[in-house]
Amino acid sequence: MVQRPSAALLARLKDLLGPAGTVESEADKAPYLTDWRRRYRGDTPLVLRPGTTAEVQAVVGLCAAAGVALVPQGGNTGLVGGGTPFEHGAELLLSLTRLNRIRAVDPIDDTLVAEAGVTLAGVQAAAAAVDRLYPVSLASQGSCTIGGNVATNAGGIHVLRYGMTREQVLGLEVVLPDGRLWNGLRSLRKDNTGYDLKQLFIGSEGTLGVVTAACLRLWPRPAERVVALAAVPDVAAGLALFGRLRAAAGQTLSACEIFSERGLQFVLAFLAGSRRPLETVAPWYVLLEVLGDHALHDTVETVLAAAFEAGEACDGTIAESEAQAMALWALREHLSDAQTPQGASLKHDVALPLAALGGFVAQALAAVEAAAPGVRPVVFGHLGDGNLHFNLTQPPGLDGAAFLARTDELALVVHDIVHAHGGSIAAEHGLGRLKIDAIDRYHDPVERSLMAALKQALDPGDLMNPGKLVRPA
Amino acid sequence: MVQRPSAALLARLKDLLGPAGTVESEADKAPYLTDWRRRYRGDTPLVLRPGTTAEVQAVVGLCAAAGVALVPQGGNTGLVGGGTPFEHGAELLLSLTRLNRIRAVDPIDDTLVAEAGVTLAGVQAAAAAVDRLYPVSLASQGSCTIGGNVATNAGGIHVLRYGMTREQVLGLEVVLPDGRLWNGLRSLRKDNTGYDLKQLFIGSEGTLGVVTAACLRLWPRPAERVVALAAVPDVAAGLALFGRLRAAAGQTLSACEIFSERGLQFVLAFLAGSRRPLETVAPWYVLLEVLGDHALHDTVETVLAAAFEAGEACDGTIAESEAQAMALWALREHLSDAQTPQGASLKHDVALPLAALGGFVAQALAAVEAAAPGVRPVVFGHLGDGNLHFNLTQPPGLDGAAFLARTDELALVVHDIVHAHGGSIAAEHGLGRLKIDAIDRYHDPVERSLMAALKQALDPGDLMNPGKLVRPA
Repeated sequence: MVQRPSAALLARLKDLLGPAGTVESEADKAPYLTDWRRRYRGDTPLVLRPGTTAEVQAVVGLCAAAGVALVPQGGNTGLVGGGTPFEHGAELLLSLTRLNRIRAVDPIDDTLVAEAGVTLAGVQAAAAAVDRLYPVSLASQGSCTIGGNVATNAGGIHVLRYGMTREQVLGLEVVLPDGRLWNGLRSLRKDNTGYDLKQLFIGSEGTLGVVTAACLRLWPRPAERVVALAAVPDVAAGLALFGRLRAAAGQTLSACEIFSERGLQFVLAFLAGSRRPLETVAPWYVLLEVLGDHALHDTVETVLAAAFEAGEACDGTIAESEAQAMALWALREHLSDAQTPQGASLKHDVALPLAALGGFVAQALAAVEAAAPGVRPVVFGHLGDGNLHFNLTQPPGLDGAAFLARTDELALVVHDIVHAHGGSIAAEHGLGRLKIDAIDRYHDPVERSLMAALKQALDPGDLMNPGKLVRPA
Repeated sequence: MVQRPSAALLARLKDLLGPAGTVESEADKAPYLTDWRRRYRGDTPLVLRPGTTAEVQAVVGLCAAAGVALVPQGGNTGLVGGGTPFEHGAELLLSLTRLNRIRAVDPIDDTLVAEAGVTLAGVQAAAAAVDRLYPVSLASQGSCTIGGNVATNAGGIHVLRYGMTREQVLGLEVVLPDGRLWNGLRSLRKDNTGYDLKQLFIGSEGTLGVVTAACLRLWPRPAERVVALAAVPDVAAGLALFGRLRAAAGQTLSACEIFSERGLQFVLAFLAGSRRPLETVAPWYVLLEVLGDHALHDTVETVLAAAFEAGEACDGTIAESEAQAMALWALREHLSDAQTPQGASLKHDVALPLAALGGFVAQALAAVEAAAPGVRPVVFGHLGDGNLHFNLTQPPGLDGAAFLARTDELALVVHDIVHAHGGSIAAEHGLGRLKIDAIDRYHDPVERSLMAALKQALDPGDLMNPGKLVRPA
């Protein structure tokens, strides 16, 4: 049951947070109310911008007492509507961006404590300032926040070597749905004093509490990077190349990305100054990155030569300078944006067991062409993680809105094939609002009921980001 | 309220599991009823040994319906009494050792599915058979099981590089307290379809359900290992050496262990054929292992030379053969056993932020000497993880029983200092029965109440390993 905030509650919140801590005009609220992909447009009477953890506690406590729901939001770069309030306008939006202090950096312990609103780029910079690496790296890193990264268990391009955000989190500070503070901001590498509570909040998309700060692991900064691109005939060949390099380079292999020829064409049309990286036009390209302290160039060269010999690669290049490495990465990084000028696109963020990846791609490409003749799939992603962004750009010349109207229908086509291959329909973007119903089709009822029981136990009033990820029991 | 199993329930369970699936005679039950350290001796009318997941479900379902409590047990190598039933004898012991199949090994996906009762050594061997590494390594690996490893989030000597058991688990199969099966046996590297339920069961010590199988990550097998030992004047110097090697060797540094001179003396007295590894007698020794594919010997040599120069190390050796490497590791591996012939010992499994480690050791050594003059501390552990086994062997000549009677008192002395330095009183052995009360002194009430709420939500009848880790709300 949706409880609208009373005038008295709104007045009290404004009084509590002061002018810097609330946003009320329609114009100023607008940026908080639409998601990154402009798929949802919600409403709220008041955007709350607390500046301290104590203020977050006070806000959450007041709203809990009043039975009013909150939608936590970080950099508002999510792709599944998880940080956008509903259209009914009864929820209050809780922006964490003013909690933007780096509280501590410890190069002995190799840890860093950042408040929720610090951007990912800010954390990367703070780590670099003490000659350490914070390895999570995403397209939106200049805008997305650590709080959002934790809430969505953000992934990115270096998961292969360093893991997702979950693997970086040593401790959390969380305001619970009743306003109490859980101070779990520990920096220990080992701590088995009961259930690992932080794991529950990581990836919970704001539905169990509000992450206000995180203690993060830092890593040694690799001295050298080697970046290479190979043209491959199919996904299976790309996986074979991945297997070779993994065997040769071990954990120094830090990225293994794939993209299709159509994706490359879109980027070349979109990105000023870009040029085709290889003479060979191939169905697929694999981008490889090795980070290490030794001479890895030779390792990559040897592996590429063996792949040519085996027919797994038909062309390739190794960047001979940092500028060349950045140019190769730029092709990968603009694959998503490059779809925009081509018309409406549907995006699917899926993961599969590696052994199933080739079969999935072949079957899904055929199925979407059958369902929507002329559709232009732009398939790319994190090959080494089994994570593909299986995106569909509208057939040229057709009406974009008509194509978007088929969102659920085409998602079903793709997701059913993902599921049949033992995959996931939400690899790194989460469920949010977009997939809260879709997941019921694929998760077994026991799993959904366990999640509902946890939601019920921690947020019995369903006041923390209701209607996202899961509904209470 | 303790509910004793009725004769009818016992008969039904025996009928269900058959002669191979139950143990009833006192002599045959005995090995299941005492913990590894012989600290607890419990009782049960019947040891249950189901052979399949379906049988586990049937057992748990019957017990749930009857309100009878279960104590899950793996290899029975736990150090905190987590797998031992209480003395009152009303609980049934559920041994998972007959679930001992490796269901799948996939060298493309780099995953392995093992049932709960497979030993850690069995999993290591199955990985090696396909030229992969399962990196968790513990003293008890020949006996401890994967189910127990998951239930306790087992650590060991390679956490520095590969993480604890938690980091190895991609999916779980769990029988829930009501007998339902949660099939979360996924092999995906990325899956953000809601709360990460497996995290809740990892480290839950059998209090939320019974892990029946796990899908585990496999790693590339490093081609080469370099093992070195350095004599250092104090813990701070050992940490400086660790910092140097971490900077030079990056992620290839896979173990950084420390032990005290008294620990070495005990091992030399205990281990036939062992000899002092260095000419220098120093207060502390640091054992280093680097696993990699390149020539790392030179890296280690350069780092040791720099550490000598800086006065951080006063002697050192690099193993020049695998036999020498094993001899160095043997000194480390026997530190725990070597205490037994010296009399009664109290063991503390603690973790600290690295920067606090030196201060903790100095303060704790002084405090235990003041509390128990003549006590012989044997301090060793995983320096790079901040995890020490701060063990206390009785003063020579004193009565062992009188020393053991001071267990709680001396634990309080050590743990209070751990807590004051921001540390954990259960780094890798868990809470079990041993520390369920002690932790209330150190965890804030919010944390304990959250754990209690989770226990209440998943096991409202408190039938899964009651009295261990946490009590329901």
